[in-house]
Amino acid sequence: MIHFETTFPVRYYEADPMGIVHHSNYLRYFECARDEMIASWGYGIEKCQEDGIVFPVASIQVKYHASARIGDMLRVTADIDSIPLAKLTVKQAVYNQNGQLCADGTVVLGFLNSRTGRIMACPESFRELMEKYDK
Amino acid sequence: MIHFETTFPVRYYEADPMGIVHHSNYLRYFECARDEMIASWGYGIEKCQEDGIVFPVASIQVKYHASARIGDMLRVTADIDSIPLAKLTVKQAVYNQNGQLCADGTVVLGFLNSRTGRIMACPESFRELMEKYDK
Amino acid sequence: MIHFETTFPVRYYEADPMGIVHHSNYLRYFECARDEMIASWGYGIEKCQEDGIVFPVASIQVKYHASARIGDMLRVTADIDSIPLAKLTVKQAVYNQNGQLCADGTVVLGFLNSRTGRIMACPESFRELMEKYDK
Amino acid sequence: MIHFETTFPVRYYEADPMGIVHHSNYLRYFECARDEMIASWGYGIEKCQEDGIVFPVASIQVKYHASARIGDMLRVTADIDSIPLAKLTVKQAVYNQNGQLCADGTVVLGFLNSRTGRIMACPESFRELMEKYDK
Repeated sequence: MIHFETTFPVRYYEADPMGIVHHSNYLRYFECARDEMIASWGYGIEKCQEDGIVFPVASIQVKYHASARIGDMLRVTADIDSIPLAKLTVKQAVYNQNGQLCADGTVVLGFLNSRTGRIMACPESFRELMEKYDK
Repeated sequence: MIHFETTFPVRYYEADPMGIVHHSNYLRYFECARDEMIASWGYGIEKCQEDGIVFPVASIQVKYHASARIGDMLRVTADIDSIPLAKLTVKQAVYNQNGQLCADGTVVLGFLNSRTGRIMACPESFRELMEKYDK
Repeated sequence: MIHFETTFPVRYYEADPMGIVHHSNYLRYFECARDEMIASWGYGIEKCQEDGIVFPVASIQVKYHASARIGDMLRVTADIDSIPLAKLTVKQAVYNQNGQLCADGTVVLGFLNSRTGRIMACPESFRELMEKYDK
Repeated sequence: MIHFETTFPVRYYEADPMGIVHHSNYLRYFECARDEMIASWGYGIEKCQEDGIVFPVASIQVKYHASARIGDMLRVTADIDSIPLAKLTVKQAVYNQNGQLCADGTVVLGFLNSRTGRIMACPESFRELMEKYDK
């Protein structure tokens, strides 16, 4: 089980005319948490790119519970239950500063060799990296 | 059964460093199709707002099949199978100019009275409007 | 003198909590018009990329006159007064469906050889293309 | 003279197919710094809204010097040289983690009474707030 979380404020332009964060932005918040998680392992997304590994999103599911708003400080979580062979499933959630759950969901990522343009199994080096952080 | 579709090009800033449309943007494409559908009924999203009706997104599911890219002309569809009492389920898809399915999914919308801030049943006037376009 | 214009609706997520289009989006509208202009010359932005020509933005100036809003159908213009040797200056404007000027500005673009990563003069082939459309 | 700065990473979706931050996003970074500055004064943008004060952008100028990229940690600055009577001029800049200047520019903001929809002079309370932080 790997757990990661990060915190950042809602940005003004992310809120829509209803004054709430547009539903598409939660996917972006989820990605921010995943990218910071990988960077925290000493392996930033820009290094993945150099190594020719990209993580195409295969599917997403999101449930919206309460609206995040301007002025909110968000906590975004990413949880990995099992080290993947083929596809990586990440459970994600966004909470506001009161601990209220704003949205949660599941993101399924593939592994793509950007040099060949082909889907591949999870690279061994990436599995080993995850195992180091798996508790 | 209500069917609607619209067409527009991929915008440059919507593509990411992999050269493909960022996965969050499909939610935005889906919304564009829904909003144009409602506008085509003579009832634009800005009129909904005046009437105090908003459509909060309750949940989404998306599967990504093939990457939309810069230069692509997209066709985005919205299908409603049944006129809702409480929540409106819209099936949506994005195709490129070759007819290839890029992504499809389901968006579930609630109805909110923006004056009271409370979830409500589908307004009768909105049901009648949908029934006119239901074939 | 080259003139181009295109038309599209305001998208819901582009409006901010004030109910007006966020000021950053006018830069995106300007770019949409420029990219459609180039595509209308039979030379899409994705072909530029294949040829290793990219157009980094060197500077921008924008004045905001009236707010574009949800439900507005925008007309976005791009005007080129002189075929460039080094940098391309494009005058741009956004009007709403009533012909009201929402914003206007100037975008200065360089030419970059994406293979060498170096700024270059305007490619001869691109100058010839512009001359065909210069009236 | 008021100086403020904040730090955050480039987000993946902010980079375009050239692998660099899309030029429109610098306007958003500038705004993040301004909003955090105001929040640091104990007067968040959401409180401004409650008080009926909004800050419409009147004009912007940006020069782009070096590309911010994925993996970069940005430092974004906001400088106010003089407390405004009518319009507030903010000088802004974005630097990467090496101290390299990525972009700088000027943002001119008006003051709008959101209840009347009319432009107003800088509210006295807001002038007093700025004077506290003016060094």
